Amino acid sequence: MEFSSKLLENAVNEISQLPGIGKRTALRLALHLLKQPKEQTANLSQALSQMREDLKFCKSCHNISDVEICEICSNPLRKKDIICVVEDVRDVMAIENTASHKGLYHVLGGKINPIEGIGPHDLNIVSLVNKVKSGSVKELIFALSPTMEGDTTNFYIFKQLNGLEVQTSTIARGISVGDELEYADEITLGRSILNRIPFEASLKQ
Amino acid sequence: MEFSSKLLENAVNEISQLPGIGKRTALRLALHLLKQPKEQTANLSQALSQMREDLKFCKSCHNISDVEICEICSNPLRKKDIICVVEDVRDVMAIENTASHKGLYHVLGGKINPIEGIGPHDLNIVSLVNKVKSGSVKELIFALSPTMEGDTTNFYIFKQLNGLEVQTSTIARGISVGDELEYADEITLGRSILNRIPFEASLKQ
Repeated sequence: MEFSSKLLENAVNEISQLPGIGKRTALRLALHLLKQPKEQTANLSQALSQMREDLKFCKSCHNISDVEICEICSNPLRKKDIICVVEDVRDVMAIENTASHKGLYHVLGGKINPIEGIGPHDLNIVSLVNKVKSGSVKELIFALSPTMEGDTTNFYIFKQLNGLEVQTSTIARGISVGDELEYADEITLGRSILNRIPFEASLKQ
Repeated sequence: MEFSSKLLENAVNEISQLPGIGKRTALRLALHLLKQPKEQTANLSQALSQMREDLKFCKSCHNISDVEICEICSNPLRKKDIICVVEDVRDVMAIENTASHKGLYHVLGGKINPIEGIGPHDLNIVSLVNKVKSGSVKELIFALSPTMEGDTTNFYIFKQLNGLEVQTSTIARGISVGDELEYADEITLGRSILNRIPFEASLKQ
């Protein structure tokens, strides 16, 4: 690409380093910003650098936070002895949106994935095991994606907890609400039968 | 979406104002930046604000430029009397990449589009007509997209030039090089026959 402006070229190069954004999209975004009022670019630019400079990770659960201990961990109304283990920050947001979990979270920061070179020591697993060792945790809810990597990570943590007194559970896998049964894959459908629940219990949900 | 951080929320809101980027994509981009070294965000943020603050439009052809008169307009090797009329900056870059045009450009800044409320007075048409009136232009090459709006804009400019001594031409429309004839649309195929060129001439291209 031939640029008539170094400033534009520089901006396009920086934008196109973002994942999923190629040079052409970056150029389109840059030209869009040039057509908008200067404030929009100033606000965007300031929001990005402030976020990167000042954002913290909660010392307790590793969730994103503006303070040392995040709002969820410091909320006196949350149950401190039930911890939901998730892969990343987006999962915390997704579960919070459901308002179904009244306990705390623990953000691992990823899943064990040998192909991508992510081992247990790249994740926040030691701090999780230490929490359990301290005796303050009654139940761990594994809420990782039901993939090979998610299952591996669940199992690795489960083994680390060997001999410690804590209940463990995993989120239910089954047919999505609203889905047609005939389109569900065999494994999901099979498990949904094995893990069936009493009908009366389902009426109360 | 529930955010655990105002800084993150603010960044996501600003990113999602870009065209084609929703809240989820904005969140993914923001979390990506948080995983990268701080320099990447600093560079991105600086490149954007510098571009928006310091970038100019060439006083002569309205192309993007770091100086008052762009590199193309001030290049003594370009033919000043042949002007290629284009919709926007990306078209200048596309044509420059072909190295087929040795003259100058004139960037209209859009096409006449009554549905979107873009009239002739929103485009850089007056300055183009004035260039022609000054008598320094021998040929105008209309290089707008072959759409209804492009054709309307071409025709509007052509009418404005009424009585002025200037050649006008439009870029050839025909079968794309490498395309299968059977997949070409009827209008394009029809025009390509009407506008056929001598075979010997085609050999020299």
